[in-house]
Amino acid sequence: MRGAFLYGPRDLRFEERAAPTIIAPTDAIVRISVTCVCGSDLWPYRGLQASPEPTPMGHEYCGIVEEIGSGVRTVRAGQFVIGSFFASDNTCPHCHAGYHTSCQHREFVGGAQAPLLRVPLADGTLVATPEVPAGELNPSLLALSDVMGTGWFAAEAANVKPGATVAVVGDGAVGLLGVLSAKLKGAERIIAMSHHEARQRLAREFGATDIVTERADEGVARIKDMTNGIGVDSVLECVGTQESMMQAIRSTRPGGSVGYVGVPHGVELNGEELFFSHVHLHGGPAPVRRYLPKLIEQVWDRKINPGKVFDLTLPLEKVAEGYRAMDERRAIKTLLRP
Amino acid sequence: MRGAFLYGPRDLRFEERAAPTIIAPTDAIVRISVTCVCGSDLWPYRGLQASPEPTPMGHEYCGIVEEIGSGVRTVRAGQFVIGSFFASDNTCPHCHAGYHTSCQHREFVGGAQAPLLRVPLADGTLVATPEVPAGELNPSLLALSDVMGTGWFAAEAANVKPGATVAVVGDGAVGLLGVLSAKLKGAERIIAMSHHEARQRLAREFGATDIVTERADEGVARIKDMTNGIGVDSVLECVGTQESMMQAIRSTRPGGSVGYVGVPHGVELNGEELFFSHVHLHGGPAPVRRYLPKLIEQVWDRKINPGKVFDLTLPLEKVAEGYRAMDERRAIKTLLRP
Repeated sequence: MRGAFLYGPRDLRFEERAAPTIIAPTDAIVRISVTCVCGSDLWPYRGLQASPEPTPMGHEYCGIVEEIGSGVRTVRAGQFVIGSFFASDNTCPHCHAGYHTSCQHREFVGGAQAPLLRVPLADGTLVATPEVPAGELNPSLLALSDVMGTGWFAAEAANVKPGATVAVVGDGAVGLLGVLSAKLKGAERIIAMSHHEARQRLAREFGATDIVTERADEGVARIKDMTNGIGVDSVLECVGTQESMMQAIRSTRPGGSVGYVGVPHGVELNGEELFFSHVHLHGGPAPVRRYLPKLIEQVWDRKINPGKVFDLTLPLEKVAEGYRAMDERRAIKTLLRP
Repeated sequence: MRGAFLYGPRDLRFEERAAPTIIAPTDAIVRISVTCVCGSDLWPYRGLQASPEPTPMGHEYCGIVEEIGSGVRTVRAGQFVIGSFFASDNTCPHCHAGYHTSCQHREFVGGAQAPLLRVPLADGTLVATPEVPAGELNPSLLALSDVMGTGWFAAEAANVKPGATVAVVGDGAVGLLGVLSAKLKGAERIIAMSHHEARQRLAREFGATDIVTERADEGVARIKDMTNGIGVDSVLECVGTQESMMQAIRSTRPGGSVGYVGVPHGVELNGEELFFSHVHLHGGPAPVRRYLPKLIEQVWDRKINPGKVFDLTLPLEKVAEGYRAMDERRAIKTLLRP
């Protein structure tokens, strides 16, 4: 089979590799129905994050179980499943606390930009849909594998309450689904920080009431202006840079909350500034597994359509073009069909 | 009158100055019944925090209202009052949200190590006791002006729940009252991190179930050992150094909470480590004013005795010896009587 490999900055190749096989008895092999390119894939793609070369790429997936290991109990061949980018046993104390991405046995699931994927800890990681879905649900179900769960976690970590005023830093797929999540949680005012027209449109469709195009300290000043100098109750930080993180912290009212899900790259927080900001800070790799059952239900019942973030669909063999389009911000998120 | 002034590192003088007078109509003048030396006074005393020289010292106070400005409505002369180290209007949005120490009109109250003190925004800042208290309550009432409210905020910020396992980093007065606060909030296991015998004793009296004497990464390893490798639910960080902050974060289980109230000095938090730690972080200058009514009630009803942290009592004119004793860790906290 052929899959996507990163050889170096902007050197993404689609090439032959061995099909995955069961290694541990708790593994499953999934035949990918749809996969995609993640905003976080762009960090190594842009050379901003070291990775071994070549690295098999892709960590968002859904599809049909092809084969299971001898120890797998709750998942069976033929089921349509969705899993998280971190495999988790769903039984350890951290999983019980709802932090599956800190599972004591967590294992990164890489190489999903391929027709077949090995998923470790299948019982703990994969959640099956009620039946094999109609194809048109696939994009939204795929979004639950990472971006929708991550946007949802950002809103939870930012403690979004009904009636709240919320700002979202970052207009990538996660930020946009953060807007949707804030809306689902009953936020009254949702300020999307974006200077890209197509993304602003989708943000509004998902529930944004205001758009702020300014960034950094100017963005903070705009938010303060809009809130009588107070700041917002909750900020969803969905980028991961020093600038975006400080923009989030400084836009929040004392006692408010920042939920941060952009993987920090080179971020250093000054203790004294954080102390006097009086914000609550919570984030990390989203425990997507925790949210899968409920979010699958919502997609299944056509209550949410997070798959709208995919504005480019390509056959898997065009994966390199999918990266290029996102790198150049021509696409929000690329869906790939094997 | 005479009051305490810091002229430079370890140069604390008790000398003549003009008695304070009403400046704004919202001011009150309080005749100090008892005052004390704060752990945070030791930062500038040790030369670890720049301050103008000479600086009038002291920010913890209780006493009898001597005089009020023409605009003061809820406080009257003759009342026994307690206030916070930050004056607050108790009406702005940040006060309404419970973050009085981020009040839009906050003003630091300095110079309490003296017989008389000017308190700005008296209506918003001062809380009167039901009547003038019996003298033996004074130390515990004084403790509410800062250390008890700060320990309580640490426990709130660390989200201490009934049945929780809690660690407290720092065995100063705030850390010890953090132990008491965790106990009052129903924590089942309270691990005090201390290597000082007298402080360990008081920690146990306040409710500590375990003592850990190791510090930094060794302290973290001990905590992990004691919790099956999981970490604790809540950590109260009551020091403010890089070491203590990292000790707190690394001792917390994923999804757990760090409440930090030690004023950070030179603390820098690495975004990536914080992200993957999955901890909740909240802290800042404790909004002591929020807690005064309830904590006064508890002291008044003899339910708590936070004044036990005072293990040295001196006449105010011996204030320099009070600083020395705390600097050399001969005393936990020095009470001063004008």
